Amino acid sequence: MNKRFAVILAAGKGTRMKSDLYKVLHPVCGKPMVQHVVDQLKGCHVEKTITVVGHGAEMVKDQLGQEVSYVLQENQLGTGHAVIQAESILSEEEGTTVVLCGDTPLLTKDTINALIEEHEGVQAKATVLTAISDDPTGYGRIIRSNEGNVEKIVEHKDATDMEREVKEINTGTYCFDNKSLFQALKRVGNDNVQGEYYLPDVIEILKGQGEVIAAYQTPDFSETIGVNDRVALSMAESVMKMRINEQLMRDGVTLVDPENTYITLDTSIGRDSVIHPGCVIKGSVLGERCVVGPHSEIENSKVGDDTTIKQSVVHDSEIGDHVSIGPFSHLRPKTQLGNRVRVGNFVELKKTVMGEGSKASHLSYLGDAIIGDDVNVGCGSITVNYDGKNKYLTTVESGAFIGCNSNLIAPVTIGKGAYVAAGSTITDNVPGDSLAIARTRQTNKEGYLNKEK
Amino acid sequence: MNKRFAVILAAGKGTRMKSDLYKVLHPVCGKPMVQHVVDQLKGCHVEKTITVVGHGAEMVKDQLGQEVSYVLQENQLGTGHAVIQAESILSEEEGTTVVLCGDTPLLTKDTINALIEEHEGVQAKATVLTAISDDPTGYGRIIRSNEGNVEKIVEHKDATDMEREVKEINTGTYCFDNKSLFQALKRVGNDNVQGEYYLPDVIEILKGQGEVIAAYQTPDFSETIGVNDRVALSMAESVMKMRINEQLMRDGVTLVDPENTYITLDTSIGRDSVIHPGCVIKGSVLGERCVVGPHSEIENSKVGDDTTIKQSVVHDSEIGDHVSIGPFSHLRPKTQLGNRVRVGNFVELKKTVMGEGSKASHLSYLGDAIIGDDVNVGCGSITVNYDGKNKYLTTVESGAFIGCNSNLIAPVTIGKGAYVAAGSTITDNVPGDSLAIARTRQTNKEGYLNKEK
Amino acid sequence: MNKRFAVILAAGKGTRMKSDLYKVLHPVCGKPMVQHVVDQLKGCHVEKTITVVGHGAEMVKDQLGQEVSYVLQENQLGTGHAVIQAESILSEEEGTTVVLCGDTPLLTKDTINALIEEHEGVQAKATVLTAISDDPTGYGRIIRSNEGNVEKIVEHKDATDMEREVKEINTGTYCFDNKSLFQALKRVGNDNVQGEYYLPDVIEILKGQGEVIAAYQTPDFSETIGVNDRVALSMAESVMKMRINEQLMRDGVTLVDPENTYITLDTSIGRDSVIHPGCVIKGSVLGERCVVGPHSEIENSKVGDDTTIKQSVVHDSEIGDHVSIGPFSHLRPKTQLGNRVRVGNFVELKKTVMGEGSKASHLSYLGDAIIGDDVNVGCGSITVNYDGKNKYLTTVESGAFIGCNSNLIAPVTIGKGAYVAAGSTITDNVPGDSLAIARTRQTNKEGYLNKEK
Repeated sequence: MNKRFAVILAAGKGTRMKSDLYKVLHPVCGKPMVQHVVDQLKGCHVEKTITVVGHGAEMVKDQLGQEVSYVLQENQLGTGHAVIQAESILSEEEGTTVVLCGDTPLLTKDTINALIEEHEGVQAKATVLTAISDDPTGYGRIIRSNEGNVEKIVEHKDATDMEREVKEINTGTYCFDNKSLFQALKRVGNDNVQGEYYLPDVIEILKGQGEVIAAYQTPDFSETIGVNDRVALSMAESVMKMRINEQLMRDGVTLVDPENTYITLDTSIGRDSVIHPGCVIKGSVLGERCVVGPHSEIENSKVGDDTTIKQSVVHDSEIGDHVSIGPFSHLRPKTQLGNRVRVGNFVELKKTVMGEGSKASHLSYLGDAIIGDDVNVGCGSITVNYDGKNKYLTTVESGAFIGCNSNLIAPVTIGKGAYVAAGSTITDNVPGDSLAIARTRQTNKEGYLNKEK
Repeated sequence: MNKRFAVILAAGKGTRMKSDLYKVLHPVCGKPMVQHVVDQLKGCHVEKTITVVGHGAEMVKDQLGQEVSYVLQENQLGTGHAVIQAESILSEEEGTTVVLCGDTPLLTKDTINALIEEHEGVQAKATVLTAISDDPTGYGRIIRSNEGNVEKIVEHKDATDMEREVKEINTGTYCFDNKSLFQALKRVGNDNVQGEYYLPDVIEILKGQGEVIAAYQTPDFSETIGVNDRVALSMAESVMKMRINEQLMRDGVTLVDPENTYITLDTSIGRDSVIHPGCVIKGSVLGERCVVGPHSEIENSKVGDDTTIKQSVVHDSEIGDHVSIGPFSHLRPKTQLGNRVRVGNFVELKKTVMGEGSKASHLSYLGDAIIGDDVNVGCGSITVNYDGKNKYLTTVESGAFIGCNSNLIAPVTIGKGAYVAAGSTITDNVPGDSLAIARTRQTNKEGYLNKEK
Repeated sequence: MNKRFAVILAAGKGTRMKSDLYKVLHPVCGKPMVQHVVDQLKGCHVEKTITVVGHGAEMVKDQLGQEVSYVLQENQLGTGHAVIQAESILSEEEGTTVVLCGDTPLLTKDTINALIEEHEGVQAKATVLTAISDDPTGYGRIIRSNEGNVEKIVEHKDATDMEREVKEINTGTYCFDNKSLFQALKRVGNDNVQGEYYLPDVIEILKGQGEVIAAYQTPDFSETIGVNDRVALSMAESVMKMRINEQLMRDGVTLVDPENTYITLDTSIGRDSVIHPGCVIKGSVLGERCVVGPHSEIENSKVGDDTTIKQSVVHDSEIGDHVSIGPFSHLRPKTQLGNRVRVGNFVELKKTVMGEGSKASHLSYLGDAIIGDDVNVGCGSITVNYDGKNKYLTTVESGAFIGCNSNLIAPVTIGKGAYVAAGSTITDNVPGDSLAIARTRQTNKEGYLNKEK
């Protein structure tokens, strides 16, 4: 196998995005577009990847980190000008260089590999990735000879009527013999309306030298979409969403409505789990036979088997097996739920551990708390973890029963098997097996309402 | 009319579902696929329906119950082998037998009836249900003579290039003269790669005997989809969803976004009700002029006229007219709301009756409670129905006023017109027209915060 | 420019809507269909708009108000009969009259203007708005001469097989020389099966007089949809939704799933705001860099920059910059939030002002309250604003700290920097910098649970 290199064009401004965020950093299914390109390249045996940065260079570097090298294109003078920035790193290399745009998040490693293999198989100096577009208006057309060889690529505006009939378009992704690429780039001029140096001119130059120019036609046009505005961004999101969702379904997950289910690539879901409509699941691992949604949001969390999460929000938490959450629960970061825990409606947890079989069924807030096994946290109970200055820990030992509408003023410990009476504000520790009560006796003023009238 | 019989093939394993749940039991719009088939057959004047079961036989029987007869196909040796299991029940019958797959949930009774009528009308011995597929790859093709008679059915892999051009495909649903079917089945061999007995071979055998073979082409290909994996399952769900939703819209219900509205077949909704996006409504009856959603879930419930249910979850409840629920309310089973009741945000009801005009507007839990008419349940009020061992009843009589953040420790009765002061924990009954108070007087430590500094 | 007039046909019953609501009042993206038509006409330099009303006349007048004139069509005797009702107002005018149906909410001012310009440009007496329909069944077809002139409009049922092949259809929108229109209308008869006076007959009459009949073909068939049942209503909603959403995306707003985002025309959203799936936003103004949803509902509200609103409902409120709301918050009318306010889960606000930097993070209800800056409203705190008869004001001055599960019984003032202890019911004013406490001391009955066993 030849050595392989990649150049990612990621310097353009993306004016039509109308955004302060640099174009290639706009996310598709939660991941910046350029990161999708880099991640796909990981499956292509590329030795060096050079990212050409310009606008927003620092933010792109922050995103991609050390995975790639960078060259700076200070002024954006065209795609040819962009690639030539990589000269100092690549020009002496023997091998194959693929040039990709940072705004093509849907391109797959399979297609990139197929492009390179076609290129090397036919010993071309340049190979264009092409696709069939039902509406090719605006795209450069691939003009082939009768034998099917690439004759030229003609821009839409320069095309004859007959050429405009052609539906095979230039996707803007290319593969080159590396040395030929950099030699030809030196001969590319900017004698055009925009005054820019165009990468496709390299094809013409190599063609003029009698070199073989090939084209690899990918069967899936949608893969080659370049995102230039937010309408295209939403289309890319939609294609990526269905790609992720189809894979999950083929692996044995039921998505009741895949069109209305939003899952990121870095999420895994076990067999026979059912995801109801309207769920957003990011960066999480879910077990088997879970039931999620409708309308749950789960982020950066780990969920066991046989767990149900209905109409709830869960972030950065770990959840066991046979747990029931929701509807309308909110698990904030650093929550850990043991097996068979039940968290009911209008309950918020934050930095809280609940042991096996414990329940907080209604209208509670547990923050900075360690709850043992088989604890019953009554409706409306609250850990008073904040005094306006600091946060403190609440400990509830196994088997305790916390009465309704009670306040546990932290730091405080409720001992094993203890019982807090409903309506109590607990300021001191409660020993195990003890009853704590802090409320006033009831007085009935009989007939009071009669008098009032 | 001839006697009619049906055989449902429901023994296959469904490997591509990658599921522990038996294939034909996977639900489409909340109902197992095979139940859809059985339900449609109810409109076809069928005398006996035999379901061929194999994998998951017991669960299929549990689902379908006594509505059909069963025969067991112990080893899955092909569709012909499956049908022959019904021999002991059917082979002596004179009449017409329709053979259907348990994984075709979208097939309608109208299509089944039309198939049978075509069959009987042309006095065929076998009639194939066909459809036009834009992409027939993989399907058996219907090869017709110049006169339009069925010449043969050719499997995709055995088809010539010209035969592959044919877009009329075999849907896998058939109609047979019953006696001819079982006679021909005896002659079907298993001399093929899979070593299986194929039902379509019956067609060839009957054809060879000079019998009339007919085809009924249904105009709607989508109806004939067989579900073999969860991608197809989601497509079936989508088609069924739109079928249900279009019927509701034609009957006078506004669905703001039918693509994003999930209603089961066994739900009815009155005229001029409006369903906002993201609602899930199962097995329920809703009245006229209701407003539901966005994002409400209603199951097994009965809702009157002019009632609003916003961003809420309602299960197994009965709700009157002019009731307002939500946003963010949760009605758990056995809740009954009279007319003009208002249940507001973050309120949970369970096994609770609320009389006409009563209100629980914010942050309450009412469980195991009987609330009279025109009661005001203050914000944060809670029925303390559970002492860790048993559940008890709370009774609030008509016209009572329950102050905010109060606890009603059950069993307890608040009398007619009584008033519970905010912040009280009520342990004893409150007589009618009386004021109950159970709280401590306020102390102000003036300037305390200054000293602290 | 000629004087321009418009006649809107809005008298039909709309039987197929199966509704008590008059057809043209059914909303599309929150605005009644006929209002869409009137609003588009505002961009067409029309001098007089006459709305022909019949069924539901009063409600249509209430909707459209003084923006248009009205004529009453007491009996619905056809479209020609409808237009003739406008005779008393229009017949003496010189100019151009466009006739539109009140059930075509998608028609744009650009198309109406183009229709009128075509009409005036070719000096026609009548010009038909046409479109190409893939499935023209049921529509009147435009039959043109070899030169492209309109020969006639033929109804589907009267069309020959060859005429039925024509895909250019009559959309039912027309432009006329005003005087010719009313002269020809007098000659229209009702000698047809329905016994109705048809507007298209005017075309034939003018044609017979040798006048020029023109047609303007709009490229977008979907714009011309007439809504006759709720299936069509949902389609119109979908087209309008995507029209609104595409414009927002082109202006720099990210819609993660435009198919599942419901925004009205009268909403504006600033650049680089991100709207997650399932949001409903009506009549609101949102700033830049906001993050909304998933599943938030915002109505008639004003939201600043950099504000987050997750899984929440916000109505008739004003919200500052850098505010964080949700998940599961509910802002009811007349709520005003200063910059950097935080409203957390299960919090309800009503007629409440919160100053800069104040927080109500969990399980609270603040109604009829004025909260200063940097106030911390503890979890479960409630303003007791209602005594069963009247509502009262709660004032919490800047820097105060309200402990958890406390009740503030209005009218009451908590002074600057004061501290309310958790679990207190506050009935009297608390001076500034003071500590208020109203609770009972805790008693532990040690080993009580042992005895009980």
